[in-house]
Amino acid sequence: MSKPIEFFFDFSSPYGYLAACRAAHIEQSTNRSVEFRPYLMGAVFKTTGRKPLNNHPLVWDYARNDISRSARRLNISFSLPDPFPVVTASACRAFYWTRSREGEDAARALAMRLLHAYFADGRNISKTDVVAEITGGDPDTVTTALNDESLKNDLRRLTDEAASRGIFGSPFFLVDGEAFWGNDRVDDVIRWANGAW
Amino acid sequence: MSKPIEFFFDFSSPYGYLAACRAAHIEQSTNRSVEFRPYLMGAVFKTTGRKPLNNHPLVWDYARNDISRSARRLNISFSLPDPFPVVTASACRAFYWTRSREGEDAARALAMRLLHAYFADGRNISKTDVVAEITGGDPDTVTTALNDESLKNDLRRLTDEAASRGIFGSPFFLVDGEAFWGNDRVDDVIRWANGAW
Repeated sequence: MSKPIEFFFDFSSPYGYLAACRAAHIEQSTNRSVEFRPYLMGAVFKTTGRKPLNNHPLVWDYARNDISRSARRLNISFSLPDPFPVVTASACRAFYWTRSREGEDAARALAMRLLHAYFADGRNISKTDVVAEITGGDPDTVTTALNDESLKNDLRRLTDEAASRGIFGSPFFLVDGEAFWGNDRVDDVIRWANGAW
Repeated sequence: MSKPIEFFFDFSSPYGYLAACRAAHIEQSTNRSVEFRPYLMGAVFKTTGRKPLNNHPLVWDYARNDISRSARRLNISFSLPDPFPVVTASACRAFYWTRSREGEDAARALAMRLLHAYFADGRNISKTDVVAEITGGDPDTVTTALNDESLKNDLRRLTDEAASRGIFGSPFFLVDGEAFWGNDRVDDVIRWANGAW
């Protein structure tokens, strides 16, 4: 099996959610694994001057409709959450905490539970207690772990590294170093990984 | 044949160029005509606060590569022009002037010549004399026509109307009122026009 495909996303990104739901399809179509790498896109926005999707009424009217109809076409359960967007630091930390203790598969399963909780069930995953509950285990232990300074620093480092590697959006894929931005690039990711270009 | 698909674009937009090259494919796939509607996207940027693609180094590094590889995949001749982007008021006026005199087909053929001139041959289509030459006919007559006040006003009105109809990008398609933004939405335009959603 070739090198994994790196998949960067923000837990508050609807298009990132849609792409995450297609990760298994990408793996089946390419015979490569997809490695989930959640990061804090808002930190990179400060660098690029980009704004959240709902910053401009014209763009947001379009995007809101586009997200819903994209979800319908892909048969993915989606309902625009309120509040939107939210801060996803706790969700990200829970992911990397789980990854360090239980590995990629457990962290990815957690990522999918968090994304479904927010984008299908409307739960507010900016709240540490909600994240702790979805993570599972003893709530106090998880909450304490998510507030650990070294975990916070790890996430800052990872987000800085993403920016330095040219990653600025969600979803954002790296296939052997080649960058693909957007849920609408999933078919291109598959073509590129299969060398059919 | 059903209602035409409206196709809005800016003559300085690389993704608009790629989509224009696929208009015939859209028509063959949907049995609908595609009506070209060039407009001045920069005027709408003032409303939305959006910026040109090359405003942010991170985004532009990505987009420049994405445009070239998209063109390769679609077998479309493309070379990033210099200067980029350019003011496209003359090109737009030439389009609507030709349309009013010779109809949709002649205007569309001119649009394709202008887009190829800029994105394949690197000619500066911000210059009225270049636009006049590509438009054909007597250069003085064309140049005078392009500077006509009523034509300028028509273009302003059309660009204002685009913004009021929720159009803010290039390419931007309307299929029975449903909006699709981006060259990466061409397959969705076809699916929607065929009712397969």
